Amino acid sequence: MAVNSPLPIASELKPVAGIEIGFAEAGIKKPNRKDVLVMKLAPSATVAGVFTLNRFCAAPVQIAKAHLAAAKDSGKPIAALLVNTGNANAGTGELGLSLANETCAALAAQLGVDAAQILPFSTGVILEPLPAAKVIAGLPQAVAGLKADNWYNAAEAIMTTDTQPKAGSRTVTIGGHSVTMTGISKGAGMIKPNMATMLGYLALDAKVAQPVLDQLVKHAANHSFNCITIDGDTSTNDSFMLIATGAGALEITSVEQPEYAQLRDAVTELSLFLAQAIVRDGEGATKFMSIVVEEGASVEECRKIAYSIGHSPLVKTAFFASDPNLGRILAAIGYAGVDDLDVSKLNLYLDDVWVAKNGGRNPDYKEEDGQRVMQQAEITVRVKLARGAASATVYTCDLSHDYVSINADYRS
Amino acid sequence: MAVNSPLPIASELKPVAGIEIGFAEAGIKKPNRKDVLVMKLAPSATVAGVFTLNRFCAAPVQIAKAHLAAAKDSGKPIAALLVNTGNANAGTGELGLSLANETCAALAAQLGVDAAQILPFSTGVILEPLPAAKVIAGLPQAVAGLKADNWYNAAEAIMTTDTQPKAGSRTVTIGGHSVTMTGISKGAGMIKPNMATMLGYLALDAKVAQPVLDQLVKHAANHSFNCITIDGDTSTNDSFMLIATGAGALEITSVEQPEYAQLRDAVTELSLFLAQAIVRDGEGATKFMSIVVEEGASVEECRKIAYSIGHSPLVKTAFFASDPNLGRILAAIGYAGVDDLDVSKLNLYLDDVWVAKNGGRNPDYKEEDGQRVMQQAEITVRVKLARGAASATVYTCDLSHDYVSINADYRS
Repeated sequence: MAVNSPLPIASELKPVAGIEIGFAEAGIKKPNRKDVLVMKLAPSATVAGVFTLNRFCAAPVQIAKAHLAAAKDSGKPIAALLVNTGNANAGTGELGLSLANETCAALAAQLGVDAAQILPFSTGVILEPLPAAKVIAGLPQAVAGLKADNWYNAAEAIMTTDTQPKAGSRTVTIGGHSVTMTGISKGAGMIKPNMATMLGYLALDAKVAQPVLDQLVKHAANHSFNCITIDGDTSTNDSFMLIATGAGALEITSVEQPEYAQLRDAVTELSLFLAQAIVRDGEGATKFMSIVVEEGASVEECRKIAYSIGHSPLVKTAFFASDPNLGRILAAIGYAGVDDLDVSKLNLYLDDVWVAKNGGRNPDYKEEDGQRVMQQAEITVRVKLARGAASATVYTCDLSHDYVSINADYRS
Repeated sequence: MAVNSPLPIASELKPVAGIEIGFAEAGIKKPNRKDVLVMKLAPSATVAGVFTLNRFCAAPVQIAKAHLAAAKDSGKPIAALLVNTGNANAGTGELGLSLANETCAALAAQLGVDAAQILPFSTGVILEPLPAAKVIAGLPQAVAGLKADNWYNAAEAIMTTDTQPKAGSRTVTIGGHSVTMTGISKGAGMIKPNMATMLGYLALDAKVAQPVLDQLVKHAANHSFNCITIDGDTSTNDSFMLIATGAGALEITSVEQPEYAQLRDAVTELSLFLAQAIVRDGEGATKFMSIVVEEGASVEECRKIAYSIGHSPLVKTAFFASDPNLGRILAAIGYAGVDDLDVSKLNLYLDDVWVAKNGGRNPDYKEEDGQRVMQQAEITVRVKLARGAASATVYTCDLSHDYVSINADYRS
């Protein structure tokens, strides 16, 4: 049960000129399930991405990074993205690289491009060999079905333990030109920066120079996918890809161009929507929490504290129980690793309720006020450190019985 | 249900000459429950402790630290320890300090000593005022009942969500002298170094000089209570106290003395037993896991990786399910923050089963072998980094439905 996360409506997901989408039911882990996705790009497209920092990064992540770098050197643009679910191709060593390369080569042959022009992505179980033959067998179906108006299917095709597809579109006018952007994401568990989403893809129809796009994707990720956590586990496969197809009229060649900031903010807003959708549909989630830490000496220390709260199993189970056992939040602040924190100046709020004042219980705090807020499906935890002007926000969900059930049963 | 943790047998818990124990049912949170403990020490006793590093450390922790320091300066030894459950007196600001001081003063008056000779400890709910009047009202009962042979009751009196008391005794011969030592601990949730146990007390009847005891308690904690984790939450109240009553014949005045190493090893062994008992009785625990990381470049990086595995909710739920979804362990290694880790040299074992070889799935690994080990109640996860000679071990438990139930219901 996702928290306040409306299902995307297929008719409201806008095609983005310059990108076509096809999918297949390749039976990678289970039959009768979309599990292979192909996104074919116009030759005018630029692509930029951010990837997991996990040292056990999956074979497809290693290859996608190499192919992105090669495209810059060779001038041969990225031609397509290939995604499979059901197997992460991670912890698979040399064999995993070889199998991922085979899938790239197979798609490249069908599209008449080089293998290095394909970006591969995988999500699913770790430490099991990729059934590359199944992926490859699904490609003709996916390629035959390529069409622009296929984003809802794309969102479904990348789901694993997600309970619902995640997608959104925006149309904005920038510099007198209309820009259409559509994105999809999947997550559910093993969600923490850096990166956060298991997989996220956002396409827009402006023409954006590669160095600009490289900067834009980092900004968008840092303000969206890198601000969420479900269980503190950073996946081996996390990737967020930003695609500028170049099919529209807007062209951005420099971050100094006034239109850049507008595009950046629009992309970031949609990215945040997609990232929050992952938290709302976190495994077993029944509550959506925004952890806001303000008045810090640095953004870094604010993020440390916000993540410490957002990761604490004790905090998360209290939210699941709608129990204002708010001392657990203070404990999580205290062990966040901000060594010179003076807790005697700290204030804590739960929505509009002032819970802790100068490090102790606010004398005016009433249990029933905390109880009232804890009943809500969406709650903001606000911590004021009285140390400076920096702030950070992290989005997370509660820890429920269903989280345990889902992750105890995931492979069965 | 604790994992392979036999109940202590009252008759096997040995009195330690120089320490008497009394308790009361003071109704702090619930009626008919031992919730106040007094441990009265002989004037010859020395006391040393290690405490939580949580910045929100509780009022009693702040006072216990101050009183330990004052005892060294004044030469007036610590006369008694006072423990209450049902309320942590943490996140309680100036009022919390004042209430904790009141309880110390009340016990001091009854024992005819100074308030600064009392060490206070509390465990329970955070952010609620200590019902000091109830604690104080329970003191006469506790003092009247003081006796040497009361360790089982002591172990029961400090329980919160523990399902069973934790205690052990040892008798060792060092330098021709018999030394008796008995310890108790409590834990259950919010367990991670530094510190780990919510509360641990270990008394022995040797005479140990203060500087020696200060060093000994750190060594013992680092090799026991600081090697366990249940949920990664570091409490506001964690304390481990080592008491040398001075009532026995052995005297240690320097760490250079040959007897020191023998005493250190004996104390550390009993401390580890008490610490592991906390993990075995971790909230909802059904499995006991030893995470051994070897061949590291430093102990620190081995601990980082061991804790990353031990904290991962995905790893812990897989163990709960007896599901050899072992890629989750690789993922946890990968995001442990050892930035230059070369995963292509890494090997992973589950007990005697070689799971991952050179960073990928061991070609000889069979799922049924992993499955066999995962069915056990006790499992060793062994990671070999191929980077050096350092190693570290962390003890943890799985994450079950009952963990969520216990922590969602704790206050109700």
